[in-house]
Amino acid sequence: MKIKTIFVLALMAGSLVAFAQTNPPAAADQLGSDAKSACSNVPGQQYPKIDSERHAEFRLRAPGAVRVQLDIGGHKYDFIKNNQGVWSVVTPPLVVGFHYYAIVVDGVTVADPASESFFGVSKMMSGIEVPSPGEDFYDAKDVPHGEVREHWYYSLTNSAWRRCFVYTPPDYDSNPTARYPVVYLQHGAGEDERGWSTQGRVNFILDNLIAEGRARPMVVVMDNGGGSAFFATGVRNPAGLMGGTNAPAGTNSSAMAGTNRFGRLFSGPAGRFPDTLLHEIIPMIDATYRTIPDREHRALAGLSMGGMQTRMIGLTHLDAFANLGIFSGGTLGELNATNSPLANPAEFNRLLKVAFVSYGSVERGADSLKSYHDSLVAAGITNMTYYISPGTAHEWQSWRRSFHEFAPLIFRN
Amino acid sequence: MKIKTIFVLALMAGSLVAFAQTNPPAAADQLGSDAKSACSNVPGQQYPKIDSERHAEFRLRAPGAVRVQLDIGGHKYDFIKNNQGVWSVVTPPLVVGFHYYAIVVDGVTVADPASESFFGVSKMMSGIEVPSPGEDFYDAKDVPHGEVREHWYYSLTNSAWRRCFVYTPPDYDSNPTARYPVVYLQHGAGEDERGWSTQGRVNFILDNLIAEGRARPMVVVMDNGGGSAFFATGVRNPAGLMGGTNAPAGTNSSAMAGTNRFGRLFSGPAGRFPDTLLHEIIPMIDATYRTIPDREHRALAGLSMGGMQTRMIGLTHLDAFANLGIFSGGTLGELNATNSPLANPAEFNRLLKVAFVSYGSVERGADSLKSYHDSLVAAGITNMTYYISPGTAHEWQSWRRSFHEFAPLIFRN
Repeated sequence: MKIKTIFVLALMAGSLVAFAQTNPPAAADQLGSDAKSACSNVPGQQYPKIDSERHAEFRLRAPGAVRVQLDIGGHKYDFIKNNQGVWSVVTPPLVVGFHYYAIVVDGVTVADPASESFFGVSKMMSGIEVPSPGEDFYDAKDVPHGEVREHWYYSLTNSAWRRCFVYTPPDYDSNPTARYPVVYLQHGAGEDERGWSTQGRVNFILDNLIAEGRARPMVVVMDNGGGSAFFATGVRNPAGLMGGTNAPAGTNSSAMAGTNRFGRLFSGPAGRFPDTLLHEIIPMIDATYRTIPDREHRALAGLSMGGMQTRMIGLTHLDAFANLGIFSGGTLGELNATNSPLANPAEFNRLLKVAFVSYGSVERGADSLKSYHDSLVAAGITNMTYYISPGTAHEWQSWRRSFHEFAPLIFRN
Repeated sequence: MKIKTIFVLALMAGSLVAFAQTNPPAAADQLGSDAKSACSNVPGQQYPKIDSERHAEFRLRAPGAVRVQLDIGGHKYDFIKNNQGVWSVVTPPLVVGFHYYAIVVDGVTVADPASESFFGVSKMMSGIEVPSPGEDFYDAKDVPHGEVREHWYYSLTNSAWRRCFVYTPPDYDSNPTARYPVVYLQHGAGEDERGWSTQGRVNFILDNLIAEGRARPMVVVMDNGGGSAFFATGVRNPAGLMGGTNAPAGTNSSAMAGTNRFGRLFSGPAGRFPDTLLHEIIPMIDATYRTIPDREHRALAGLSMGGMQTRMIGLTHLDAFANLGIFSGGTLGELNATNSPLANPAEFNRLLKVAFVSYGSVERGADSLKSYHDSLVAAGITNMTYYISPGTAHEWQSWRRSFHEFAPLIFRN
């Protein structure tokens, strides 16, 4: 198992590999005649457009600019200017799902005025939603819809007003005596509490699963796990923050032992997040919403940094959580690590009802995760479930699919 | 009364006059040593900063750019580059409240990477929140907080999934048999259903008013009134759309008679909005939330284009609304206009419990609005209330204050 690779990927919140090919060609592709405007554009904007082979064309009117580039998926492509001062570029086929992107105008990286904005990479980025034929589990459908509630509260731990977003299932208001299990669902570094409901579309994923009878109606709480300013000082490659450390994943699974190693990532609000979650958010949610306030009906899950927080907080607080979901954020730890909860398989199996680990296939191969799983089984750990998102990397499509796999497993009784 | 001026201003959704002076000097101001980062910045960003005299300094790292300008309040200011490639500019004192702004990099108008983004002027704009000493009615305070719920529904009128944001007051969930009056509250052209809860902070305004006992707990529905693409094709001066028309305001008060004159403003979703509101949104809200579903407990209000919609829809549907709030969106019409509801003062007084009209003092003088009000009183119309926001123009601070004045007047019994 390539520990270092896992660590580095686990730290990267942006969509870093957006292309179907490992080495995309220079952008000289043609946009197909069946291209349509991306649904992520703001009203009235035709471009970016995407064709059925997932080429995307971006345009920018910039008669006075000297050089315009597209920054997407870790690659930069030069736009070409026409004689009206409109620049355009057509990309190689993009991977399905949501990708952050930016436009570089004479060296300045900015959001595309044609796109909606999404908080990622510690700033408001542009995003493009690439349709995935036959894959509609995250679309708005003709089913009952839950709500996403913006909920404000004052945090003593942070001495600040904070907000979380709370998904309540479709029957929450019409069934006023029902009580519901709760998932605490965390974003990645450089993102915030908006990520899961906007980029992730978790509300539509659950609406659809609940309508199909595949998931139990549940409340989802999306709060701010910190790390919002992770990329803010111009550090674009989070691998640089690793400082060559090659410690095994398992050594981080005891509380916030990794705090110092990760430097800024877990300083500030992220460093306070375990206390905020355990001592403020959970009690507030249990007091405010009709929850089932016990460990069996509580899950902690997250992507990337949120996955790391899930194992750091969750594995050390099995009194609070019986269900964990780690999406592109490491594993359950090493069997032989000091203080690992895996050291007592019977207790681990008894306490954890669901222990879910997932990755995108481009960031970690299925074989690697299967062999990790098999090693746990051989050691008597029988409650781990794993999932590999086909053809996707460290990006939102992996995490949408991960949640879609995770939600049906939890709260089954 | 300068009808044409009112019309032009009523169409302009952006913050067009952000400066305390009518003719701001060239930007050579100094930032005071007490400057603080704007609360509208994204995490980790120091600039823009604002000092106690409301000078603001903006910065952008752009070593390769040839010219960088700040576009705020209808003025452009040149940034100056230092020898590290960091550009900066200090503005004259800004008006208090929220202002949209953008940065122009070698002629391309883009959002500032240091700022949160806000949908305005038909795209994701940057925004700066300028503190207003002693004026905190729109701040988060230590009072019970309501929620803002993102609510999705399918609209047959529009053949599209739509969302509205619904404010529910602090006691909504804890008081499960209570029923509430409802305000339908509309944004301006180039904005959308997000405007009132983000730029407008209407949730905090109501939380505070309710805590003070000054407003009755109420539900607020913020839907999309169309006009989102109004500025999308590069038309920056909406006055150009007027085509020299000088028709009196009153002639527009009968349904959507102005549809053709306003061209794109009321085409598409905005043209369908009266039907969407009356036949889809209101029935859905009354079926979904615990409302008091009668005209006395229903208000329609809006800013700019939303104010025009309030008079076009509201004044012609007094069977549906007994309370109207028109913020920077015209008046109740002319006394002598054909088909004006003002033609029958006794009936107008009987049907409309609250008829509220407001402007910012910079866009329309208090004397003008008072003389309009007095002319109505002389004609027997006794139920108009008016308000002038001191020192502000066609901008969010005028509309926050307008809502803060309007909410205590409605639903008093």
